[in-house]
Amino acid sequence: MTSPVPPGGTIGILGGGQLARMLSLSAARLGLKTHIFCDKPEAPGFEVAAAHTLAAYTDTEALARFAGVCDAVTYEFENVPAETAAFVAARVPLRPNERALALTQDRLSEKNFIASLGLATPQFLAVSSVEDAAQVQGPSVLKTRRFGYDGKGQAMVANAAEAVAAFEKLGGVACIAESFVDFAYEASIIAARGTDGSFAAYDPPHNVHRHHILHRSTVPSPLTPEAVDSALHIARSVGEGLDYIGVFAVELFVGKDGALIVNEIAPRVHNSGHWTMDACLVSQFEQHIRAIAGWALGNPERHSDAMMQNLIGEEAADWQALSQNGGALHLYGKRDFRQGRKMGHVNWITPKG
Amino acid sequence: MTSPVPPGGTIGILGGGQLARMLSLSAARLGLKTHIFCDKPEAPGFEVAAAHTLAAYTDTEALARFAGVCDAVTYEFENVPAETAAFVAARVPLRPNERALALTQDRLSEKNFIASLGLATPQFLAVSSVEDAAQVQGPSVLKTRRFGYDGKGQAMVANAAEAVAAFEKLGGVACIAESFVDFAYEASIIAARGTDGSFAAYDPPHNVHRHHILHRSTVPSPLTPEAVDSALHIARSVGEGLDYIGVFAVELFVGKDGALIVNEIAPRVHNSGHWTMDACLVSQFEQHIRAIAGWALGNPERHSDAMMQNLIGEEAADWQALSQNGGALHLYGKRDFRQGRKMGHVNWITPKG
Repeated sequence: MTSPVPPGGTIGILGGGQLARMLSLSAARLGLKTHIFCDKPEAPGFEVAAAHTLAAYTDTEALARFAGVCDAVTYEFENVPAETAAFVAARVPLRPNERALALTQDRLSEKNFIASLGLATPQFLAVSSVEDAAQVQGPSVLKTRRFGYDGKGQAMVANAAEAVAAFEKLGGVACIAESFVDFAYEASIIAARGTDGSFAAYDPPHNVHRHHILHRSTVPSPLTPEAVDSALHIARSVGEGLDYIGVFAVELFVGKDGALIVNEIAPRVHNSGHWTMDACLVSQFEQHIRAIAGWALGNPERHSDAMMQNLIGEEAADWQALSQNGGALHLYGKRDFRQGRKMGHVNWITPKG
Repeated sequence: MTSPVPPGGTIGILGGGQLARMLSLSAARLGLKTHIFCDKPEAPGFEVAAAHTLAAYTDTEALARFAGVCDAVTYEFENVPAETAAFVAARVPLRPNERALALTQDRLSEKNFIASLGLATPQFLAVSSVEDAAQVQGPSVLKTRRFGYDGKGQAMVANAAEAVAAFEKLGGVACIAESFVDFAYEASIIAARGTDGSFAAYDPPHNVHRHHILHRSTVPSPLTPEAVDSALHIARSVGEGLDYIGVFAVELFVGKDGALIVNEIAPRVHNSGHWTMDACLVSQFEQHIRAIAGWALGNPERHSDAMMQNLIGEEAADWQALSQNGGALHLYGKRDFRQGRKMGHVNWITPKG
């Protein structure tokens, strides 16, 4: 057991987007400082961090200085280069660990890992060549193994011929073909694991996507108590399997028979957990900070039912109306209303039903 | 009506203590930036503000630069020098206004103002000389007219002779003698007034002090519905009387007959409103930011019953136990556990009774 980072200590965050911003706000609430490392000058996290470094993730001088002033380092996105993670981890505790990052950066390693835990996934096939693509059977989703998010780098295909065409259109990069799952709806489980191996999970939300981007998350979900138990089992298995420290999310397909199928793992706080900011005493952001700082995990129980709705692109231009709709408005400080860009979200809460 | 400060705009805050820190965190949630002006290098607010100025409140060059980059300016403590407030107000909207600041800086002006609204106060007497002090009748509290807080600059006196002695001990500065009120308990009301004159108030908490420093605030309080109405009337009168913009608090004595007596007005967010951070969708900090930014006021309704307990001095050294007691822990990032220093607080919530 390492000793916890005390109040006044500094948490480093690789990445400066809205997740880093909300992590910083939660760290501040606990008396902790944050230092955000990001390569984008207008990173939303910079505005609320005690310090920041604007540098490339490959800038080892900047990384060494950054690691030198942090008591623990975390990351807010899964595409942190492996070399960056290794460089930091050699100098200061990196939480979650490099293996969690490496596994979730590659859809094929991730699926193999999930399958190795005995958890259900869609059937999958590595597609590294036209010959592989020609083996795809039935409706599938062809996805690049790396750097995909919010539906980017993927294509629905009906058969082998379409898979070959899609593989070529995706540039012939390493892909994975996943059998199309005709699910009833989507859900997720957001859980945390502490440095002492303790585990805590939030109530799994029901998630609705629009144009491949999360639109709404609602708790309670229609999951049966048995399905919630199954989600908890999945989260525990993943957390233990990765020797994970921090908050992570497991995205789930809920089959028409009610069975859960693991879609993917996010080694970080997750958009479908943003409702915890207003419906729980300890949000997913505070929980992550507690975990990586080596503190005891907080109580994940929700005090209210909740619905979170994302504000995408121009939707946030309506901030005056949004500030008066009875919900809690969260804006990320981004300047440009780019299409598909996550600008903020609104949480509505109602007494626990 | 002035137009509201849009997301991305900058709120200036005079003062950099824990109130500025919590205001900054709430501003960030709404996509607003803060710029904190403070004369203390280790101001807890600096760590979470997009920008800060470390300078004396009399440094007009620094103040001019500060005012030049802010869309609206507020203050987090009532002892901002009048000249500073005037200098800023000439350049950018200062909310609340200079009059609210001036009146509440001087206990005598404040009491005269409260009396002018027809609201009950303890009987009071200006004490500027030994001769004045000799007029004090019966048990009273002698207080310096300016710069007192948390029981500093005040003395209980039983009669005129003690009043004379206390006046001399307080250095012969301008004082006010207030008749001792034999109250049943203390309460407060935290309310907000918007740029459009709209009004919103939180449920009045029951406050318990220890060594003149707030110890606990609890909602609901034992106030009768009639007393709550009376508190609302007091808050509305004060807000309108000051043409106030922002959040303010009125500290109340609850007499043994249940009648409310105004103790003092705080032209800012207030320690007895910290429970709103975890028991309301819109906390007093967000409410203040909304008001001074010219946004619509948020819903002050609480979703839960709550108790707030302050962490004073060494009490915060116990942060590991405090982080595991089922409450929401808030620490202010102060380094030294000085006696009597407000280091943080804990909020416990329970379902609304």
